[in-house]
Order: sequence, then C-alpha cells, then structure tokens
Amino acid sequence: MRLLLAQLNFTVGAFDDNFTKMAAAVEHARAHGADLVVFSELATTGYPPRDLLRHERFIDLNLEQLDRLAALSADRPAILTGFVDRNPRATGKRLYNAAALCSGGRIVARRAKSLLPTYDVFDEDRYFEPATTVEPIVFKGARLGVTICEDVWNDRDFWPSRLYHRDPVEELADQHVDLFINISASPFTADKPDLRRRMIAQEAVTHRRCFLYVNQVGGNDELIFDGHSIGIGPDGRELLRGRSFEEDLILCDVPAGDDTPLPPAVPPLESGEIEDVYAALVLGLRDYVRKSGLSSAVLGLSGGIDSAVVACLAADALGADRVLGVALPSRYSSAHSVADAEALARNLGIGYRLVSIDGIYQAQLDALAPLFEGREPDATEENLQARARGALLMALSNKFGAILLTTGNKSELAVGYCTLYGDMAGGLAVISDVPKTLVYRLAAWINRDREIIPASTMTKPPSAELRPGQLDTDSLPPYEVLDPIVQAYVEEHLSADEIVARGFDPAVVADVLRRIDSNEYKRRQAAPGLKISPTAFGIGRRYPLAADYRALRRTTARR
Amino acid sequence: MRLLLAQLNFTVGAFDDNFTKMAAAVEHARAHGADLVVFSELATTGYPPRDLLRHERFIDLNLEQLDRLAALSADRPAILTGFVDRNPRATGKRLYNAAALCSGGRIVARRAKSLLPTYDVFDEDRYFEPATTVEPIVFKGARLGVTICEDVWNDRDFWPSRLYHRDPVEELADQHVDLFINISASPFTADKPDLRRRMIAQEAVTHRRCFLYVNQVGGNDELIFDGHSIGIGPDGRELLRGRSFEEDLILCDVPAGDDTPLPPAVPPLESGEIEDVYAALVLGLRDYVRKSGLSSAVLGLSGGIDSAVVACLAADALGADRVLGVALPSRYSSAHSVADAEALARNLGIGYRLVSIDGIYQAQLDALAPLFEGREPDATEENLQARARGALLMALSNKFGAILLTTGNKSELAVGYCTLYGDMAGGLAVISDVPKTLVYRLAAWINRDREIIPASTMTKPPSAELRPGQLDTDSLPPYEVLDPIVQAYVEEHLSADEIVARGFDPAVVADVLRRIDSNEYKRRQAAPGLKISPTAFGIGRRYPLAADYRALRRTTARR
Repeated sequence: MRLLLAQLNFTVGAFDDNFTKMAAAVEHARAHGADLVVFSELATTGYPPRDLLRHERFIDLNLEQLDRLAALSADRPAILTGFVDRNPRATGKRLYNAAALCSGGRIVARRAKSLLPTYDVFDEDRYFEPATTVEPIVFKGARLGVTICEDVWNDRDFWPSRLYHRDPVEELADQHVDLFINISASPFTADKPDLRRRMIAQEAVTHRRCFLYVNQVGGNDELIFDGHSIGIGPDGRELLRGRSFEEDLILCDVPAGDDTPLPPAVPPLESGEIEDVYAALVLGLRDYVRKSGLSSAVLGLSGGIDSAVVACLAADALGADRVLGVALPSRYSSAHSVADAEALARNLGIGYRLVSIDGIYQAQLDALAPLFEGREPDATEENLQARARGALLMALSNKFGAILLTTGNKSELAVGYCTLYGDMAGGLAVISDVPKTLVYRLAAWINRDREIIPASTMTKPPSAELRPGQLDTDSLPPYEVLDPIVQAYVEEHLSADEIVARGFDPAVVADVLRRIDSNEYKRRQAAPGLKISPTAFGIGRRYPLAADYRALRRTTARR
Repeated sequence: MRLLLAQLNFTVGAFDDNFTKMAAAVEHARAHGADLVVFSELATTGYPPRDLLRHERFIDLNLEQLDRLAALSADRPAILTGFVDRNPRATGKRLYNAAALCSGGRIVARRAKSLLPTYDVFDEDRYFEPATTVEPIVFKGARLGVTICEDVWNDRDFWPSRLYHRDPVEELADQHVDLFINISASPFTADKPDLRRRMIAQEAVTHRRCFLYVNQVGGNDELIFDGHSIGIGPDGRELLRGRSFEEDLILCDVPAGDDTPLPPAVPPLESGEIEDVYAALVLGLRDYVRKSGLSSAVLGLSGGIDSAVVACLAADALGADRVLGVALPSRYSSAHSVADAEALARNLGIGYRLVSIDGIYQAQLDALAPLFEGREPDATEENLQARARGALLMALSNKFGAILLTTGNKSELAVGYCTLYGDMAGGLAVISDVPKTLVYRLAAWINRDREIIPASTMTKPPSAELRPGQLDTDSLPPYEVLDPIVQAYVEEHLSADEIVARGFDPAVVADVLRRIDSNEYKRRQAAPGLKISPTAFGIGRRYPLAADYRALRRTTARR
C-alpha cells in the first residue's frame, strides 16, 4: 500500500487555512499515486483546541471541515484524519477525540480514542468520552489498526507502571491487523523523539507488523510539536522519518496484507540535544508570533546572556530586520552592559535603540518619597527599575505592534529572581523552561562558528544590575548547584530529604525550596513560555497560591 | 445516631493548623455525646491541593494526618474524614480521593470516590483513580452510605443529561443504607446553595432516608467554599443547615437504623443573591490574604465604582485599619475623582494617600520621544499612565508587605478594557468575576443604610480618565448591553448567531466577541480572581492564545 503521511503545522481554529494545506497534501498524494493520506490527531481543529471545544459552533465547524475532506476523497486518494466527533448518547462527555476514514466521497469509518491523557499539559478527560472498544478499519482489503496518540502509550511490556487499564494496540492486534497507524499530536521534550521511536519499535516487533506514526508539527502556545513522524518495520528497523520541526509530506510503500516489499531502513537520527532545543525554541517563537497575527518583536537587551540568547532565537525565527533590541540602562548599569548589548545587536543585524530609565526612576522615587519617608531602600527600589523598563518596552510593543519577548530563564523564574510586571512583562517567555546552565550551553552552540554573542557576555558573572555591584550569587547559590535542586523539586517532585541525599547542603536546599514555593504567585501571572522539559512552568504545572508549603519542604534529616 | 458535622475552613497544606481545628471539633463532639464526627472532602490536605498531590511527601503527610485522627478516635467519638489514599496497584492513577472511618483508635474502613469532576475548575482525573464499586460502611450496626462530593451529582432523575455512567448513591441504596452521608468541597456560585438542597432532597426522598451533606467552608485561591452543609429528611424537609460563609459545628440526631426521631425542620433559607455574593467576596478576599501569610491591602482609588466596591469589601474583610487607598491622579483626572476617592476613604475609615503620576508620565514621554517621533498618540500613552500607577502601587505593596488588590470587573476583563501590568497589576482580582451591572447592584446594597460610596461615584458615567473627556461608552456598548453578550459567549458558549437571535445588534455582537477573543492574552496573565459564576476567567476557563477565532465568531445571518 502506498501512503502519504502528512506532517503539517496547523493553527488552532484556522479552518480555511488548515483546509488549504490539507487539500494540497491530498493533491500531492494523488499526483504520486498514493492510496491513502494520513493526517494527525484533531487535524480538523488543530491541537490543542482546549475550551474552544465547549462551543457547539466550533464542533460544527470541525465537522464541516471533515465533510470537505470527505468530498475531496471522491476522486482522490482516501483520507484518514483526526477530528472531533459528537457523542450521540445522553450520558458521558459530549465529545470524542476521533479518527475518520474518508473514501469515495464519504466518511466510511469512525473510531474514537480510548486513552485520554489527563496530566501535565493534557486535559483530555475534560472534554472527551473514551472509546471502550476498538476495531480495525478495513481499507482496500487491508485491516488497519488505527489508534490516536496516547492509545499507543500504555504497552505493559514497555512501561514499568501503567496509567490505563487497557492496551488498544494489543486489542487491535488480537483482531488481526495488517498495518498499524497512529495519528498523534505529541509535543516535544528533549528526550521525546527517541522515546517515541523505541516505543513504536517495540509495538512493531511485538505484533510483527509495520507501524506508522504521524505527528503534528509546529508551535501552538506553550507546546512545540516536533514532527518526527516515523515508520517502523516488523523487524524494528526505522523505515521512514519525517523532518524535525518542519512540515513534511512523507510518501511510503509498506506491506499491508499485500505483497509490497519493506522499504530499506533510514540512517540513524543524528541531531543532538542542544540542536533540537534550539530548533524547538525557534519554531515555538516563530509560530507563537505568526499565529498571534504579529510579525515583529521587541526585547530588552541587558548585556547579559539570557537576553542575548533570546535575541538570537528571535532573529532566527522572525528575521533580524523584524527584531528590535533596546538597551535600558540605569545609574547602576555597567558600561560594558550597554557595549555588550550594542555589539550583540550589531552582530545579529537586529534593530537597536538605547533609552535611559533614569529620569523615570527618579520621578518614581520623587513621587514615593513622602510615603517612604524613614524607610530604607530594599527590593522595592530594584523592582521599580525593572517596572520602569517593562513599561517602556510595552509602550514600544503597543506603538509598533511588536510582541515583547520576555527573557527570563527557568532558574530565575523558579526562585522568583525576577520582577512581576518588570522583566517578567511580555507576550512570550521564550526561555522560561530553559535552566541557566542550559542557556550557557545554547549560547556556546550559537557561537560555535563565530562570535555572535560577545565573549564578555559569556564570561562575566551574572548580575541583575539593580544596585551597585550586585551579583546573582549574592542571593542565589551558583547555577550549577541551583539548577539540579530546581529540577529535583519541580520536575521530579522530590522531598527536601531526598534532595539533600543527593549531596546538597541542607541549608541551601531549604532556601531554594522556600524560594520556589513562595514565588508561585509570580509564576501564576507569567507570560506563556515554550515548553521543552517534562515539567515546565505554565499550563502543565498547577499549584495552589494561598497555601502553606512549609510542612512539605521540611527536612527530617538532622543537620 | 448523634453526629457532629464539622464545616471547617482549611488551609491547603497547613497540616498542623488544620489538625488543631479538627481535634477541637472532635473534642466538641465528645463533650456533646456524639457518636461520629464528619469532616469534609480531602480534609487532611484542604481542598484543592492541586499538583501538591504529585509530591510523595505530601501524600505521606496526609496519611500521617489520618493516623493522628485515628489515634484521636481511641477514646473519643468515631471520625469520618476525607483523605488521599494511595492506589496499591501498578496500573491506573496513583491516588484515590477517599474517605476513612476511624474508630477505637484505628482506621476501620476506607472508601474511594467514584465520580471525578474534570471540568471547569476541577481536575480530579489528573490525580485520582476512580472507585468502580461502592459499599456501605457499617458503624454501630448502622449501614452508612458514604459518598464524596461529585458522587451525588449524577442522579438520572435530577439531570437531563449525565456526565457519568454510574450513580453511586443508587448503587449504595441497592445494598440497603440506613443513612446517607456526603462529604464535599463544593465551591460557591450564586445559584449553588439552592441547587444542592434540591438535589440532596431528591436523593433523600427517592431512597427514603436521611441525607447529610458536609461541605468545606472558606476561600482557597479562586474558589470560595460557602459551607451551607445540610441535612434532609426522608420526606424532603430540611432538618439542619450549616452557617453560610462561616465555620460551623452542627450537632444532630438523626435516625440511622435506630429509633432516633426525626428532628424538626429548619425555617427556609432567607439570604438573597446580592447578600451571598457580597459575603462570598469578603470571605474569599479575607482568606486569600490570610492564607498567603499577609494581613493588609493596598489599592488604587480612581473615584469610580469598581475601586469603591473593592475598598468596601477589603475594609470588611481585613478591617479598615489594614487597608490603604491611594488616589493616583494624572493630568486627565477630573477634580471629582480625587474628591470621591477621598470621601470614600473617609466614609470607610481606611488609610488614604494621594500620589500624582504626572512626573512619571512626563518622564516616560520624554524617554520615548525620540523613538515615537512622528507617531500620533494612541492607546500606548493611555497604557503608560496605567502602568505608572501599577508600578507605584506595587512599590507600596513591596515596601509595606501589603497585597495589591486589583479592581477590574468581569465586563472590562472580558473585552480587554484594561491595561496589562497597569490596572491589572495585583495579587488578587477581587471582582474579576463580577459584571459591571452586578458591581452597581453590590454598590447599592453596600449603601443600603447609609452613603458609604459617594453618590457621585454611583451616578457619574464610567470613565477610565486616560485622555480628556474619555467615557467607557466611547469604546464599548452600554453595560446593560455588554454584560448579557459577555455572559452568552463566555458562560453559555453561544454562537454569534444565537446571541444576535436574542435581540442584539449584529455589529455590536461582532465587535464584543472580537474583543473577547483578542484579549485572551491579557487574561492569561491576570491576577487570580474570586469565582462567583459558573464560568469565571481563571483556572476554570482554558483557551488557546495563538489561535484563529474568526471562524468561530462569524455570523451566518444576513445583516
């Protein structure tokens, strides 16, 4: 059987634009003699549609989209696509996350997803009723074992513990299947492409069939879909691979109850972790801006490494001529900060402006002087400077219709080493899931061929420059210590005791955990950030605010 | 049987404080000869614990709390309480939302929740494995039909369509039950107390048994638990009622397979909608501040009705001496604005200061002048003023450790008639779920006995005063038109056609819906707000940002 796997970049709700893309893929399939075109999960709406699913009109638009695809299939190849189906019964959730096979101008089969991810960023139980049985779809005499994303993530032989009680792939295999197809919208994290490959290979080998896996590509808010569609043979060899972080139309001939020979294996994937993270962030940034209807960005350049890396990502994603970097020095800024910011902008070819905040800061201090009489300066005055910058950058964003990019990293967002409405202001937090140590590695990778980020930005000790001589290490442990503690608590949910047992100073652990807990209120109001780790701050991490975390982080170990 | 229903106000994670409260209730029960004390859902952790449930240490602390309660029961009344149980199996979610009966110093029965709400603000499928069967708990010869919150919300005779396939109450009734008990954490919305009463009455009458319903009370972040615990007799009469918006220990004698006579019915509930909403907001505000470890508040007083109502709520919740109102006039502020702000502060007895933003605004304009050359003034300059105010208010918050209260209402948050990092800045958005028309009704109710909010605040046309002569109606339809359109789209998810069919001008509907959709990015960064409606902005409403909403709101009707 000849198939076309359509790895496309959908905008949620953009029915017409998405249809145009899908129709072009179908046309490509026709031109190449394919029997079947396969689109990804919820291709009719784009994934994730979230609470748009609560609008009946949105469901109707999605069903109209399916009808348009069915009509296409009248004189073209058949189409397998994800869509939202209605649950006809009065009991249960109103909707199904479903797949339809369109052939000869009609919808000839519908199947619903069995396993509904409801963890991290996923809320599928919120919307969908699960299928309770599965059945192969017969197409041109072949029995297709069609599953949807999470359906393939519950193999008892692959996972030590399982979230679900059923294994739809096994249930399909028990009914005889000639070819497995999974349609997915599986977002990127650094380890995901390899994990998916191993998991699908295990299914292919266990059931001795080819297994095709079609993933969405593109950034949708916090989520970055990496593509990386794959096809695995019954012997576990990788037979095809979609591009990473790009659209791709992958034509393939695979056996499906017929005598199609197995294609040769593709060479092993060579991309490294840093490369993937960089590509993911560029895609996420580009798509967030584009799908928001914008085309340009502004950001503050402090001369530090975070804003330098974000500027590089923005120039790559949008084009250097669509990025404006602004240096916003104060009385506490060092001379090299402005020089480094300017050098970076010059190296990248982005726009550059300099606006001093000193007049505004002085006006703030003057206005507050009668109310602050007799009080010592503290973090309040530091925050004022950050907020003066935030307001100026937002003014540029408002005046020129450019998105303001926030440049804070995961480490500082974790411990609240950032100012709400100040440096946290912006439409997208590009590296808020990137720990500081990884920011350095990204910077080194950016500079691999030539110096784009100035050497002094790379080597100077990190500082917020909000008071004379300030260094990050005045308040925080070194990032090589901070980052693994943050990861242990935020991503692994370890206790203070368990973190101390990894060899960290108990007092440092206690202080870091206290900072993480007590800054939840800042993160609640943070800009959406691009997710690259298993647990990013944002929609996938949901903590109470007015709560008491002290017992949770208490150590039982003797000091 | 004599029971004590303990309607308590828990802080999530405050194990020791919560235990002290529970122990006092058990002591009260002992002193009054009760057989059984009943605590609400997840009483060991406080509800909702959200992602704290991902920490094994948190689960352990909750189990230790249960052990402490069990120990209490050694020489005191038995205890029925909600807690988090572990799922011992390797398949399924790791946890149960559970109830335990402690008696004679031991845990003698455990039951898990069957129906897990996963909609609106609820994410229970994210954490919990559902029970698949139910069984009465035998206590002192009586068969207790114990259910947990949502378990009672799926009666086929009460609801036209049902979210779940099972009815745990019916399943228990089929096994013979002498007394039904539901332990809940059911948050307030304006219609909820009456709905719960009718629903429980239907169960009691259907199964001809007393039905006791114990609810949590208190504010936990966005959610306000109203208490309103109830007991209904087999004849549908209301036999007992817990206080609304306050802790209560309700002692009651009810038949439970024994010859206890039915108590007399309580008189019908008399509180009105406005009274309830006001009380809910006061409780939500007080608890958010207190449970955040704070005790005082600051807010901007514009002379308008929104900030006036929030100031009244704050004075009521925290005490007038813990509230500071700040007038922040600019060159565009009318004289009466400052006079009204000052009069309000005087009427309430709260602190009052005046800080002009003109120096800061001028410094901002000066700093930006070279970059804005040749550009006309627009919303950018209006936002600058709002952000100058936000920064000053946050400085007061930072310097004095007082929470900044945001004063925006639901109508303006819906259409984005507000400035991110400006008037949207703050730790709690007190009335962000209160439409403007309801703000007026609250104000009238506040002034029912004497003028607290100045008459001119009540009568002048609403204005943001960000440019000369500006009125809200320059940009928006009148609030009597805007509010029902917002409600139809945001709460009822109606289409543009359906809203127009209610009699609104198609052009107005199109404009309002466009504003709602295109301001989702502001709401994503909004302060948490107190929920009083079925659909509040916040954790219970989840929309994509970089998406295309145009098809959704398109009308098919001819103009």
